[in-house]
Amino acid sequence: MSMTLDSLKKLYVHELKDLYSAENQILEALPAMIQSASDSGLAEALEHHRLQTLKHVDRLEKIFEGLEFEPGGHKCAGMEGLLGEGKSVLADASEPSVRDAAIISSAQRVEHYEIAGYGTARAYAEKLGDYQAADLLQKSLNEEAMADQTLSRMAERKINFEAMQVG
Amino acid sequence: MSMTLDSLKKLYVHELKDLYSAENQILEALPAMIQSASDSGLAEALEHHRLQTLKHVDRLEKIFEGLEFEPGGHKCAGMEGLLGEGKSVLADASEPSVRDAAIISSAQRVEHYEIAGYGTARAYAEKLGDYQAADLLQKSLNEEAMADQTLSRMAERKINFEAMQVG
Repeated sequence: MSMTLDSLKKLYVHELKDLYSAENQILEALPAMIQSASDSGLAEALEHHRLQTLKHVDRLEKIFEGLEFEPGGHKCAGMEGLLGEGKSVLADASEPSVRDAAIISSAQRVEHYEIAGYGTARAYAEKLGDYQAADLLQKSLNEEAMADQTLSRMAERKINFEAMQVG
Repeated sequence: MSMTLDSLKKLYVHELKDLYSAENQILEALPAMIQSASDSGLAEALEHHRLQTLKHVDRLEKIFEGLEFEPGGHKCAGMEGLLGEGKSVLADASEPSVRDAAIISSAQRVEHYEIAGYGTARAYAEKLGDYQAADLLQKSLNEEAMADQTLSRMAERKINFEAMQVG
């Protein structure tokens, strides 16, 4: 379903719908990623992020309540591509520690999609004077950025080292 | 074509192939994005990034020369999704200034994919002791991050403001 994007407001609504679809696709994909993680710290970090993602969906629904649009009706093709790619890499990663490294790589691509999306949506919200929405979007943006940093730290301090011991 | 990923080295080669495919897909997509930009500053920034992307491809080819693998044989499905999504948003953006804002939004998603990918590849290169490759990957990573910041500044200082004037 496409919508003519002839104003910043409509582009803003499109960005929010895109994020809403992305977050819901992530919620569907995370349980399998968590199950395929061998490192317990990595599994915990992903579960923590799953709970944050539920909050991000709530925040988006709250923002939509203040607008004259529904959150559904759009499928984020970017996230679909990222999650499909992640699934295929994990299927090829036969060694548990290498698979953990691949899970982090894939999850960070997902985080970065959201960092870009929330940054854009927050900038539009500010320009349109929707400061309450801008605050909510900034909160989710900060949590995505933190999740990305947590994964980088885990990879550099432990997971990549363990992956180097095999093969 | 899939490859069994049973060592960090193989995952590293996979990351490099993924980036190589991503960069080449971006090179194919950029001319149409540049053509559809109305703001001359935005068109110039994208053209500057196109020239940087050529350098990034060269750097990846240089890294592959030091490895026993060829750069081809893998299509980055994540970038395919991102570029397809970008194309569809631009087609819906009927107002030139709104389209410029949409171009930036789409380009920043692409930048962030590469920021995640280069960050991961550089971490693997360091862990594997391939410091020359790590330096090259860090250079491309820095340029992607700069390109992302340039686009944020253009959006916040000019493009989003102009997009707000229509519709």
